[in-house]
Amino acid sequence: MTTGKVTLLGAGPGDLDLLTLKAVKALAAADVLLLDDLVDARIVELAPHARVVRVGKRGGCRSTPQAFIERLMRRYALRGAHVVRVKGGDALLFGRAGEELATLRAAAIPVEIVNGISSGFAAAASLGVSLTHREHCQGVTFVTAHRQDHGEPDWAQLAATGTTLAIYMGMSRIERIAAGLLAALPASTPAAAVQWAGTPAERRWIGTLGALADGVEAARLGSPAVILVGAAIGEAGALDADRAAALSRAA
Amino acid sequence: MTTGKVTLLGAGPGDLDLLTLKAVKALAAADVLLLDDLVDARIVELAPHARVVRVGKRGGCRSTPQAFIERLMRRYALRGAHVVRVKGGDALLFGRAGEELATLRAAAIPVEIVNGISSGFAAAASLGVSLTHREHCQGVTFVTAHRQDHGEPDWAQLAATGTTLAIYMGMSRIERIAAGLLAALPASTPAAAVQWAGTPAERRWIGTLGALADGVEAARLGSPAVILVGAAIGEAGALDADRAAALSRAA
Repeated sequence: MTTGKVTLLGAGPGDLDLLTLKAVKALAAADVLLLDDLVDARIVELAPHARVVRVGKRGGCRSTPQAFIERLMRRYALRGAHVVRVKGGDALLFGRAGEELATLRAAAIPVEIVNGISSGFAAAASLGVSLTHREHCQGVTFVTAHRQDHGEPDWAQLAATGTTLAIYMGMSRIERIAAGLLAALPASTPAAAVQWAGTPAERRWIGTLGALADGVEAARLGSPAVILVGAAIGEAGALDADRAAALSRAA
Repeated sequence: MTTGKVTLLGAGPGDLDLLTLKAVKALAAADVLLLDDLVDARIVELAPHARVVRVGKRGGCRSTPQAFIERLMRRYALRGAHVVRVKGGDALLFGRAGEELATLRAAAIPVEIVNGISSGFAAAASLGVSLTHREHCQGVTFVTAHRQDHGEPDWAQLAATGTTLAIYMGMSRIERIAAGLLAALPASTPAAAVQWAGTPAERRWIGTLGALADGVEAARLGSPAVILVGAAIGEAGALDADRAAALSRAA
C-alpha cells in the first residue's frame, strides 16, 4: 500500500484571492480536506475531489480537540490519501503546526508545507501602513495573547524591543493587554485593531494605546482580530486624516 | 485626465507558485512594472502589457536610489498608468513601503496593497518547523540587521522576549549578531540560516547559536538569507535526525 501525504496549507486571512497558486494546486489534488472554521467556506469548491471534514476550533467554544485532528490526519494519510490540512493565515504562525509536524514525523508520513498570508499582514494592508517603517522601528513581533498553559506574556519586555507588536487572539483580554503595555509605553502610542482583516466582513478601529480597550469595546469589535501597537501604526492615522481632507476638498 | 494608481505588490520569496491569485490579477492589469531584483525574472510573463523598469537594490551595490523609485511611481501614476511596484516577500515588511506610501498619499494617488509570503515564513517551511511552537515560545520577531541610520539592534533585548528571532539582511554582519545574541542566550540555542528560501536555489545551515557564524561561513551561505534563532528552531534538528534515521533504515 502506498502511504499518502499531508499538506499543511495556509489559506490566508479569508479572501480566497489571497490563496497562493501553490495552495490552489494542492487543493485541486486533495483527497481529504481538514478545514479550519476561519477559512472562507467556498474554499471547498477548489477541492472538488476531496472529502471535507470540518475541524474548527475557535477560542474555547465548540472545539475539535487537537489530538483528534492529528489522529484524523494520520489515519487518512496512512490509508494512502493526500490530506490537506487547511489553516487560516500562514501554516507556521500559531495554529499548532508544531504538534502536527511532530505527530506526522513520528508516523513517517511525508509532509509538505504551503505558506499563506497571516492576518497581521492583511491588517497592515487594510490600514495602509508598513509594519516596519524604518523611521519608527527595526522590526515587528507577532505574539499570541492566548496562553492558558504559560500565563500572560511579558508585555513590558515585548514593548522594550521597540518593534511593532501584532497581537493575535487578544480580544477577550484586551484590557489586561492594554494595561500591561501602558506600564511600558506612553498612552499616546498609536494602536489599531482589525477584525476579519482581508475579508469582506473587515472592521477596524484606529487610535492610541490609551484609548484601545474602551475604543474597541465602543466600536464593538470582536474576535477574530489582530491588535497592532507601535509608532509605525501612526501612519494609519495620517492616512485617515488624508482621506478626510480629500473628502472635505471634494465636498 | 484620469489619475492612475499604484499597487504595492508582495511577490513572495521567489517561487512564482507562491504568488497570490490577487497578485496574478494585478500583474495582468499592470501598465508599468517597477521590479525588485530579488524577484524571479519570469514574473514579467505574467504582465504582458506592462513596460518593465528594473529598480533593484541589493545591500549596497548597484543600487537604484529610493527617491528615484518614488519619482517613477508618481510620474507614471499621474500620467494615468496602473503602476505595480513588485517587491520580494511581503509588501509591508521591510523594503521601504512606508516611504512609498507617504509619497503616494502626498500626491493623492490611489494605492492598493497586495500581501505576499515573506522569506522568514518560507525558511520555516523549508526547515519544517513552526515559527511559534507553543512548547517553546509565544511569538516570533522579524527584525532587520541592516540599520545604517540607527546603529545595531539591541540583541539582548530582543533575545529577552523569548520569541523566535527571524533576522533579515544579517549575513554581512553575522559575527556581530551572533556575539550580541550570545551575550543573552546559551550557545546551545538552536539556530539556522536559509539562503534563497522558497526558491530552487535554496541552501540552508542548521545548528546552534554558538556555531552559527563559523557554520554559515563554512557552508558558504550568503545573501539573501534569513537567520532563525530560538528553541522552536530545534525541531528542525529533530527533522533532520529523523530523515537520517529513515535513510539509514532504508540502506
